[in-house]
Amino acid sequence: MIQPYDDNYFMKRALQEAEMAYEKKEVPIGAVIVINNQIIARAHNLTETLNDVTAHAEMQAITAASNFLGGKYLNNCILYVTIEPCQMCAGALFWSQISKIIYGARDEQRGCISMGTQLHPKTVMTGGILAEEASQLLKKFFIEKRNLN
Amino acid sequence: MIQPYDDNYFMKRALQEAEMAYEKKEVPIGAVIVINNQIIARAHNLTETLNDVTAHAEMQAITAASNFLGGKYLNNCILYVTIEPCQMCAGALFWSQISKIIYGARDEQRGCISMGTQLHPKTVMTGGILAEEASQLLKKFFIEKRNLN
Repeated sequence: MIQPYDDNYFMKRALQEAEMAYEKKEVPIGAVIVINNQIIARAHNLTETLNDVTAHAEMQAITAASNFLGGKYLNNCILYVTIEPCQMCAGALFWSQISKIIYGARDEQRGCISMGTQLHPKTVMTGGILAEEASQLLKKFFIEKRNLN
Repeated sequence: MIQPYDDNYFMKRALQEAEMAYEKKEVPIGAVIVINNQIIARAHNLTETLNDVTAHAEMQAITAASNFLGGKYLNNCILYVTIEPCQMCAGALFWSQISKIIYGARDEQRGCISMGTQLHPKTVMTGGILAEEASQLLKKFFIEKRNLN
């Protein structure tokens, strides 16, 4: 049986969000939140556009998903995010009690793994889905940014 | 010389915010952000009202202060918050590069110190200002909540 709704499918949607961020000259990171194979939130980084460090893709996706569900807990939800969450986003995910976090590429410097951020005991985190695509988009952004300055 | 704008003065404003949260049956935590002795943001926890785990007092205050300043960095700003920030809020404060964080009471369980959240090298954090008042308000909230259930 063909399963169209697998991790690659949803991570591709998150990557599309990251590309939208890239088009806006934002650090290109995208996220979607899924419940029962349905996308209930999609978002991309808007820190420059909104002049707001809290406007990471994951933060907006958490708010949108809670809004959709009418409750603040994201049990049974999966977050797909193109880059490993930072301390802030992992901290928000802790409060949300989300079931699963699936990231694309690691963020060795500022990601929650290196920074030692604690996840909720109910949350499982895995990574490496379309990592190369996520990482390449980020690299392209920073190379272009450097060349402009 | 009398200095009306000291840490106690601004923490009292943060406590007033916490009391507003208490009136709304929210976990009573309040925050203000100050630059050059001027309050540029005030907020209180609204996680229940907004059904959103990201709606902590500090997060809203960061967004409001950035909006006021027209930039996402909070250099030269001081955050006064009645309770020690959590991982999420400390993570957001990391990105904001805020100069100083002054909290009232410690949060031994979920605060950024116990959880090991990293602050920005430009940020200094101190605590204990009106700690008893902040702590008593929180205790009162949780005792009343327990008695209702």
